[in-house]
Amino acid sequence: MEIYKMLEKVRTQKPIIHHLTNWVTIYDCANIVKVLGGSPVMAHAKEEVESMAAIASALVLNIGTLTPEFVESMKLAAKSANKKGIPVVLDVCGAGATALRDNKCFELLDSAKIDIIKGNSSEIARIAGENVSTKGVDATDVGKDLMKIAFSLASKRSCTVVITGKEDIVTDKEKTYIIKNGTDMMANIVGTGCMATSVIGTFSAVHENLAQAAAAGLSLFEIAAEQAHTESTGPGSFKEKLFDKVFLLDEKSEKMQKIERTVK
Amino acid sequence: MEIYKMLEKVRTQKPIIHHLTNWVTIYDCANIVKVLGGSPVMAHAKEEVESMAAIASALVLNIGTLTPEFVESMKLAAKSANKKGIPVVLDVCGAGATALRDNKCFELLDSAKIDIIKGNSSEIARIAGENVSTKGVDATDVGKDLMKIAFSLASKRSCTVVITGKEDIVTDKEKTYIIKNGTDMMANIVGTGCMATSVIGTFSAVHENLAQAAAAGLSLFEIAAEQAHTESTGPGSFKEKLFDKVFLLDEKSEKMQKIERTVK
Amino acid sequence: MEIYKMLEKVRTQKPIIHHLTNWVTIYDCANIVKVLGGSPVMAHAKEEVESMAAIASALVLNIGTLTPEFVESMKLAAKSANKKGIPVVLDVCGAGATALRDNKCFELLDSAKIDIIKGNSSEIARIAGENVSTKGVDATDVGKDLMKIAFSLASKRSCTVVITGKEDIVTDKEKTYIIKNGTDMMANIVGTGCMATSVIGTFSAVHENLAQAAAAGLSLFEIAAEQAHTESTGPGSFKEKLFDKVFLLDEKSEKMQKIERTVK
Repeated sequence: MEIYKMLEKVRTQKPIIHHLTNWVTIYDCANIVKVLGGSPVMAHAKEEVESMAAIASALVLNIGTLTPEFVESMKLAAKSANKKGIPVVLDVCGAGATALRDNKCFELLDSAKIDIIKGNSSEIARIAGENVSTKGVDATDVGKDLMKIAFSLASKRSCTVVITGKEDIVTDKEKTYIIKNGTDMMANIVGTGCMATSVIGTFSAVHENLAQAAAAGLSLFEIAAEQAHTESTGPGSFKEKLFDKVFLLDEKSEKMQKIERTVK
Repeated sequence: MEIYKMLEKVRTQKPIIHHLTNWVTIYDCANIVKVLGGSPVMAHAKEEVESMAAIASALVLNIGTLTPEFVESMKLAAKSANKKGIPVVLDVCGAGATALRDNKCFELLDSAKIDIIKGNSSEIARIAGENVSTKGVDATDVGKDLMKIAFSLASKRSCTVVITGKEDIVTDKEKTYIIKNGTDMMANIVGTGCMATSVIGTFSAVHENLAQAAAAGLSLFEIAAEQAHTESTGPGSFKEKLFDKVFLLDEKSEKMQKIERTVK
Repeated sequence: MEIYKMLEKVRTQKPIIHHLTNWVTIYDCANIVKVLGGSPVMAHAKEEVESMAAIASALVLNIGTLTPEFVESMKLAAKSANKKGIPVVLDVCGAGATALRDNKCFELLDSAKIDIIKGNSSEIARIAGENVSTKGVDATDVGKDLMKIAFSLASKRSCTVVITGKEDIVTDKEKTYIIKNGTDMMANIVGTGCMATSVIGTFSAVHENLAQAAAAGLSLFEIAAEQAHTESTGPGSFKEKLFDKVFLLDEKSEKMQKIERTVK
């Protein structure tokens, strides 16, 4: 896949990526969009989310520190995004940990068109209807065929599904990609999962085929992580280098891509 | 200007800088005050903002992730600051992007004395009454004489106006300063604009002439950014070094200042 | 004390540490738990705090950016934690600065069993009933015997009390520890105090004797800080290295411990 060309489009078009995200990694979500070359904006007041989504090129929703009121703002933003025809990405952060999270994800999915659903294995399994639980916001072993789960959710919700993990799965039912880039160090710090969602949102703003956009964004983000890992001495320096390396991604980085397309 | 003496006053007096700011860069706002030598405090509950402002030496307001309720707390804090006679700085973050942001800025300016209004070119132009829009929280080309706009807003609101950009403009109508320090790298990460506002707030707490305080603070912050840039390999390491370099600012740093005073 | 064995338990058991904390250092609180080997989760909606506390191994409360509504969620979470029998840690951040902070701390202490109360000298003195004030969130000189104050609060509230400072005091009335690890650099950045609370919460999840858990956690955290300090060039690089060094703590680090047990 010509993943670097997509990144060039981000850098040229500088798309506005509107977020309603969590208070833990909100800076990282904004900053990863910025170092990619996009223009992040975080706005959650119900009085302005519709207007903000209307000037954006993609909308990223993340329920990491949700409240019912916050989810109402998400619905308004998502409907506005639907009206404008820009992609909506939902990170089902912590689904499977509490009933509130599950229910609010289902409400969001029922009240607007969500184009990309993203989570770790147990989060996505829960949203796909499996009876599994998530350890707070950390994945548990689902013990089932993740590919099948992704495929079933993509089918049920007519959307692209992304399951992140040691290997990431991206599917829109028609096309399925396995991304084998990345490093274990990503799991040693808070924020890489949320940042991955923001990266996917950013790529979805510049490339119409959303499964390709998600696969390309994930692969490039994880290539940068691989590069950062080799120059770091622990999770603190890894994270700092990660922003450097995403900013410095170039044509050569594309050669490190490990995206496999699988056939149904 | 003897900008280093002002920094010494910050380090000696350790002023409390009360913030009501956004959830994206709130850590950076607090930390930049801390590494300068001040004592940041972030408090937004309507039940305590008046008391907190009353023990502070400056108040910083930033509407980056505003809600109507949050702005009500800002008004209470600003009135308490007015009563105590400490400077109030307002970052009109995202003005020109949505009607909510514009209206709430006007409400704030009408309900309390704001001593310093700070924003990028399109944000300030919007608040000065120009028909321009902001790209989320990123500046757009206003296509007009920024000096004139700053001057007009300073005059209308009887305050100091700061427009940040490649060159920063600071004016209180009587005196106008152009600050030519800084580096392009500052625009590659999220947070430098918000931190600049917190720096201005910190300097305004120790130096009565607010235009001078703002110019001095901006210049020193941007000198540190120049120093950080030379030792960094991208935006991640730049930001880490920025905190180091602000902390390490010394008498020699003053020689790097590029502040020009212009005549009406 | 065999402090490294406790850290090994954290790394093996990966306890969920549920936080209701402030919006300034929320990332740092989560990330320090992560680099220790735990599983942080931040959730504050009143609709889910009870369920989240019920799957956690410790609960950390921090009033740094409190509102009355947020404190109501804290009460629900604390009662749920009490029911499950997991330790509850309260950081009385900013007590002594405003009446709201004092009153809400007292409300929390009256409405649920708090197992560990943690703060700086003036915060703890205020909660112990002394007529002192806090400079925002920075300690003031209490001018009294801190050991006595800690002892009196531990006795009054039947809990473990932690006072952080140049030397940290940990007491449960029966046993008192003085921790002499750490570096002045910790006071030059925002977040070390909050992170210390999260570290204490993490260790309390794996070791039943809470005074020992708090002393061990503080000592190891501060040993990592000492190591980070020697490799840093200022507060920015110090903080990055701090995450590296906490992640890399090993059996040899234990030898750097400076924990003194004092006799009544």
